[in-house]
Amino acid sequence: MTKIAVLGAGSWGTALSIVLADNGHEVNLWTHRKDQAAIINETRRNDKYLDVEIPSNIKAYDILTEAIDGVTAVVIVVPTKAIREVCKSLNDVLNHDVTIIHASKGIEPVTLKRVSQMIAEELENYKEEDIVVLSGPSHAEEVALRQPTTVTVSSVQMDNAKVAQDLFINESFRVYTSPDILGIELGGALKNIIALGAGISDGLGYGDNAKAALITRGLAEIARLGTSLGANPLSFLGLPGVGDLIVTCTSVHSRNWRAGNLLGKGHKLDDVLEQMGMVVEGVRTVKAAYQFAEEQQVEMPITKGIYQVLFEEKDPKDIVEQLMNRTKREEMDDLAKLLMERYS
Amino acid sequence: MTKIAVLGAGSWGTALSIVLADNGHEVNLWTHRKDQAAIINETRRNDKYLDVEIPSNIKAYDILTEAIDGVTAVVIVVPTKAIREVCKSLNDVLNHDVTIIHASKGIEPVTLKRVSQMIAEELENYKEEDIVVLSGPSHAEEVALRQPTTVTVSSVQMDNAKVAQDLFINESFRVYTSPDILGIELGGALKNIIALGAGISDGLGYGDNAKAALITRGLAEIARLGTSLGANPLSFLGLPGVGDLIVTCTSVHSRNWRAGNLLGKGHKLDDVLEQMGMVVEGVRTVKAAYQFAEEQQVEMPITKGIYQVLFEEKDPKDIVEQLMNRTKREEMDDLAKLLMERYS
Repeated sequence: MTKIAVLGAGSWGTALSIVLADNGHEVNLWTHRKDQAAIINETRRNDKYLDVEIPSNIKAYDILTEAIDGVTAVVIVVPTKAIREVCKSLNDVLNHDVTIIHASKGIEPVTLKRVSQMIAEELENYKEEDIVVLSGPSHAEEVALRQPTTVTVSSVQMDNAKVAQDLFINESFRVYTSPDILGIELGGALKNIIALGAGISDGLGYGDNAKAALITRGLAEIARLGTSLGANPLSFLGLPGVGDLIVTCTSVHSRNWRAGNLLGKGHKLDDVLEQMGMVVEGVRTVKAAYQFAEEQQVEMPITKGIYQVLFEEKDPKDIVEQLMNRTKREEMDDLAKLLMERYS
Repeated sequence: MTKIAVLGAGSWGTALSIVLADNGHEVNLWTHRKDQAAIINETRRNDKYLDVEIPSNIKAYDILTEAIDGVTAVVIVVPTKAIREVCKSLNDVLNHDVTIIHASKGIEPVTLKRVSQMIAEELENYKEEDIVVLSGPSHAEEVALRQPTTVTVSSVQMDNAKVAQDLFINESFRVYTSPDILGIELGGALKNIIALGAGISDGLGYGDNAKAALITRGLAEIARLGTSLGANPLSFLGLPGVGDLIVTCTSVHSRNWRAGNLLGKGHKLDDVLEQMGMVVEGVRTVKAAYQFAEEQQVEMPITKGIYQVLFEEKDPKDIVEQLMNRTKREEMDDLAKLLMERYS
């Protein structure tokens, strides 16, 4: 038994706390909202996010110093836009060695930093290589119900990844390790762009054929960008790549898909975000990826199209038709081509 | 305008006839059932398979000699177990040069031949290199409704593939070409195994996380077998690989998924096939792939598990649990490993 802090009591933070609690650990679940902490402790529920009983070995806190007292690992599961602020607060109060694991999926616009980079920049005694990411095809709702789930943990320091693997692994939550944190973080973030696109396609009333084409081309596109940034293209074929892409693009649980779906039905971005009432990471990620693509001169027609729908009020129907009607040409898919060039 | 014969008036043959008819071609749609041909010609409907009006430039025939009279291309879209018989009949009556295209997905048990090989063995004046395959993420129901769809055509003779591309391509039906017919045919056939598995997982009540893990691992598994047989592993990343896999595993249109779903709910194979009343290609393909895997000594745990459910009455629940509970280990996914070995 170990004492672990989970920072962020949204659906994913709560679900991961349940996994840790099931494994017999003592879990301190931190939220910045005092009322939410009180409700969790009193009612054993976190109804806004998950319809499940919270185990008794999870205790909610709204004071960070208390939450991290005596813990051996800190799991950061806040929206990417809150990462720096939470890490700054953590830096002020953390005065013992812990394993830092994060399970947030996004890229910071403007700086274009990944989450592990943002964390390392804010935490004084931690380098980028120390941080562990946990990612994979994993809807929180299903994890909370102990449905079979597989994820990958990754860190430059494989020993840290293995610590995380040991903390989380159990019969229904299978945890694999990978050395390519760059590919794992980029795959997890960029797939949300394609999920928005899949939602738009569905919202427009197109079928599964169109969506499968979009996902396949989207996979090639995000792998192309990821590789230009130094990721191993093969990471995009694993659980945190194609696996996560599939689950996010084909499930009604996915916020990004749901946001895209509303956009496809003709709603404007501001209305969609208001209606959702939860963070839609993909929207920020589209902005970052579009900027990346411009800088790196990487061709990303799907990302560009979605950017235009989100921020330039282009008609989604025109964008999809434009994507479909690129001229006929020899197909050796882009991802395939990329691998060929790199590995032949 | 060209005259084209389509052999096989099931849902896929009918949908492809509609694409050709939309492109202005005169289509002779052949079925071995006299009553079906008469109904199509009289009512302009083929209700058992598709809920759509049949265009007037499609004419149904039940006599093969009449159906192939004056055509420049023959599209074969019969179940794989009928391929040889139909080709034998065709051989007896075909006395002019045509482009042979097939759109059937399966592998012949015992001989382990692909469809283009079976066709070339039966047709006297055609070699394996001449045959074109058409494959991709394409539910017939959506194609018939002119929903956006992308497919790939492939042949050793690229000129033949290009003829097929020109016949089929239009605004909503995008056709790409590939030189790797082996990979395209194997991808199309083997993905049905994983679709059965995805259906079983859903039938057992598992969620999207489990299904995404199964699809991801399944992709690696079929690529591993395909590569051992000489296919380009990269083909499994394109539209007829991962694209088709996604559409088949996540859509209620898919017969293989539906059959798997019933198996997961505890029905026995014979009952399932009776209940479906349509050919379930995946069932024969599991048998062939299992035999392949044994001969080639390729590790295929998912295929083996599904084989045991289908033919050895193993409990699907035990199989899924067994697949989930393989020991923790470093993850560089199998497909990734394969590509690394081959291209580094």
